[in-house]
Amino acid sequence: MTTIVIFGATGDLTKRKLIPALFNLHKQGKLNAKIIAIGRKPLNDESIRSELKQFVKGDWNTFKNLITYHQLEFHDSEAYDALKKKVASDQNRLFYLATAPESFPIIIKQLNRTGIAVKNPKKGWHRVVFEKPFGHDLKSAKQLNKEITTIFNERQIYRIDHYLGKEFVQNILVLRFTNPIFERLWDADHIDNVQIISVESDGVLERGGYYDKSGALRDMVQNHLLQLLSLTAMEIPKSLDADDIRDQKVKALKTIKINADWKNNLVLGQYIAGGKVPDYHKEKDVSQASTTETFVAMKIMLNNKRWKGVPFYVRTGKALTHKYAEIVITFKQLPCRLFCGPTGKLTANSLVIRIQPDEGVELQFNLKEPEQDAAAVPYTMDFSHEAEFGANTPEAYERLLHDVLRGDQTLFTRWDEVEHAWKIVDKLRSVKVPLRPYKAGTHGPAAALDLLKRDSRDWSGNRALRR
Amino acid sequence: MTTIVIFGATGDLTKRKLIPALFNLHKQGKLNAKIIAIGRKPLNDESIRSELKQFVKGDWNTFKNLITYHQLEFHDSEAYDALKKKVASDQNRLFYLATAPESFPIIIKQLNRTGIAVKNPKKGWHRVVFEKPFGHDLKSAKQLNKEITTIFNERQIYRIDHYLGKEFVQNILVLRFTNPIFERLWDADHIDNVQIISVESDGVLERGGYYDKSGALRDMVQNHLLQLLSLTAMEIPKSLDADDIRDQKVKALKTIKINADWKNNLVLGQYIAGGKVPDYHKEKDVSQASTTETFVAMKIMLNNKRWKGVPFYVRTGKALTHKYAEIVITFKQLPCRLFCGPTGKLTANSLVIRIQPDEGVELQFNLKEPEQDAAAVPYTMDFSHEAEFGANTPEAYERLLHDVLRGDQTLFTRWDEVEHAWKIVDKLRSVKVPLRPYKAGTHGPAAALDLLKRDSRDWSGNRALRR
Repeated sequence: MTTIVIFGATGDLTKRKLIPALFNLHKQGKLNAKIIAIGRKPLNDESIRSELKQFVKGDWNTFKNLITYHQLEFHDSEAYDALKKKVASDQNRLFYLATAPESFPIIIKQLNRTGIAVKNPKKGWHRVVFEKPFGHDLKSAKQLNKEITTIFNERQIYRIDHYLGKEFVQNILVLRFTNPIFERLWDADHIDNVQIISVESDGVLERGGYYDKSGALRDMVQNHLLQLLSLTAMEIPKSLDADDIRDQKVKALKTIKINADWKNNLVLGQYIAGGKVPDYHKEKDVSQASTTETFVAMKIMLNNKRWKGVPFYVRTGKALTHKYAEIVITFKQLPCRLFCGPTGKLTANSLVIRIQPDEGVELQFNLKEPEQDAAAVPYTMDFSHEAEFGANTPEAYERLLHDVLRGDQTLFTRWDEVEHAWKIVDKLRSVKVPLRPYKAGTHGPAAALDLLKRDSRDWSGNRALRR
Repeated sequence: MTTIVIFGATGDLTKRKLIPALFNLHKQGKLNAKIIAIGRKPLNDESIRSELKQFVKGDWNTFKNLITYHQLEFHDSEAYDALKKKVASDQNRLFYLATAPESFPIIIKQLNRTGIAVKNPKKGWHRVVFEKPFGHDLKSAKQLNKEITTIFNERQIYRIDHYLGKEFVQNILVLRFTNPIFERLWDADHIDNVQIISVESDGVLERGGYYDKSGALRDMVQNHLLQLLSLTAMEIPKSLDADDIRDQKVKALKTIKINADWKNNLVLGQYIAGGKVPDYHKEKDVSQASTTETFVAMKIMLNNKRWKGVPFYVRTGKALTHKYAEIVITFKQLPCRLFCGPTGKLTANSLVIRIQPDEGVELQFNLKEPEQDAAAVPYTMDFSHEAEFGANTPEAYERLLHDVLRGDQTLFTRWDEVEHAWKIVDKLRSVKVPLRPYKAGTHGPAAALDLLKRDSRDWSGNRALRR
């Protein structure tokens, strides 16, 4: 039997993501486990169940009895001893640390002290899932990693980045390596530039306290965006084994050059009031003098043969025009010889991998305009995952929890990935660039446009407008 | 002022295609011309107008007065003299020969004798449109061409192939030459095979008399299918000038190798009763002992660098499962290294150019199956012209008539194209292969499947089933 122990069981993540994901796995018969919800509040089995119920749609009755509550202060040794008794009969143990990262060390130390979770269990398996952020810079991440690897093997450690659970993040590799039409074009000979975009229209909402200590570089770039970048840029792995894939991802991260030009390659911004969004400064739990960036745009070069001279433009931010995430591969244009029209130029071909919402793939290509002969104009071929399968793609957390239960680490970040991502972000954070204000509801600071204009390029355009 | 003189004005083509096309041009203000309808029947202006009216949807009143009737037996000199008076005041003259091809020589001789149509008019222009078939073999086509080129210059001669007026036939070149993603893959290094398919579900219906003397090779292959083939295979033309394009098309046709193997590369069939379609033998106006082929499948090789080793599979026929025309470019598959699934094989990428119906472009590519990791499965990205622009693409004849009025010969076949297409078809007709019966409503003779199975390939699949 398997026990899933969730630390931080009364928090938002557990309610909104973990419990619905576990419920769905249960519905599909993929969950052969009981769940121990751990929190500091004085609740009992009945009250935690009724608190969680409202986040689940469907037949709660067969699921609710899997959940019990265990009250525990993270530093309270006796409470762990009591927990030990509850899990004693279960060989397979999954610990989900959905707490503030400061609590990670004390929790795992106590788990280890009591023998609830050990490096090499005699029977079954012990696995630990760490919610992000994994550290807040390279130094703290190293320290954290040192503490957890004293207690666990790397293969027991699941550092979660929920982006990797998204259907169309997983599809990046499938798209690249099973389609010769794309694979053969996937290099500097054929690709002009790559854009990696994840933007939101909301401000920080209720998350100001966390966000103000983090900012866009640590909250988005260090994990989600560098993950998308490494999946897009990596060489073909030897196999689909988790470590073969992660080897190549790390290799790609290592080729990123951050040099003296960096001042010109990085734009940071912070939103000011616009529409319904207030000044970032005035958001709840945000410091009045905050210099936290809510917007990042940058140009990254990879120092290898495949990507020689191909810029990766990355953009992320809060309080922008729309909410979407996508990767845009723009192919090199050949000099126009036919059907050039009055401008003498053709629109470049591009492939868009839509991560969210409306996951899918689109290809922008040229055709003749009806009843016009001399000019080609861009149209779009489209594959929409939702149109094909309906809107019932498994949520990222559902997928990822299932992977932990199965012991598949592919979609979790290995330590050296985390390490190199922090190295990059630490360097970025050390670059002295001004923090530019931008009005909420816009595309961000004008400097982000200039970043591409300088290269005679443009951002791929707002998806909502493009479609 | 321009006069359009239509010979064969009471025939099916005039009623169903030419008049609706001219009416649409008129509606759009693109027709600054009057129309003289010529037939052998004793009609007058009023009666031809009311006969034609039923083929037009829309406001007939402003259009009808453009039409007058002129009764004329093709060999009756006096009737041409009378016609001359009617056109005397018009410098620009377009003659549309929508008659049986046997009548072409006598008509143009009379036009020339009277000076109604001459090689080098002092003012304006004289142009002649010849409906297909242009000859019934190389010899007769040469003879016909000799007669018409004695009287007209090549630049006055418009040999019509209405396929070339179709939006997505015109789009073949735009697609190839304005999209680097396709242009760079358009050769034997990247393409496995090309399929050119134009099939119908109807039998010969009312056209048995004509069809039985013609057959699929002459009725479809000589013109439509070899046109699609040459547009798909040709090298990039120097410019969009009609002659630059036609130079390259002819060059492509000249590379077709027809050799000793041909017996193995050609399948002919004739339908027998199935569904509502009777035996071909029993169709109206078809000879009981007819050996006319209603089905052709073949494998054609082009002898040049671009297409070295790439078969072009061509298939056309009547009384098959569905009615559609398309070009399928199947790209070479790389050896499967990842996501190969239990079969160890991936579906090859393919690009489909849909000529009719539902004109458009689709790209078949691989993605992961939702909730499956180990295998990639094929999906389709799609661009539908109708979904984008509605169903109001100009009909081929509308487009082509407008081109004749503007003097643009690009979409008309030059003599050397016709000549080389006949050379190919004459060779094909000389190959001794059995005429295989196939049941109406099926995919044709089994031998057509074997043609590809021998090469470990398949026909691209019925579009209706594929979508």
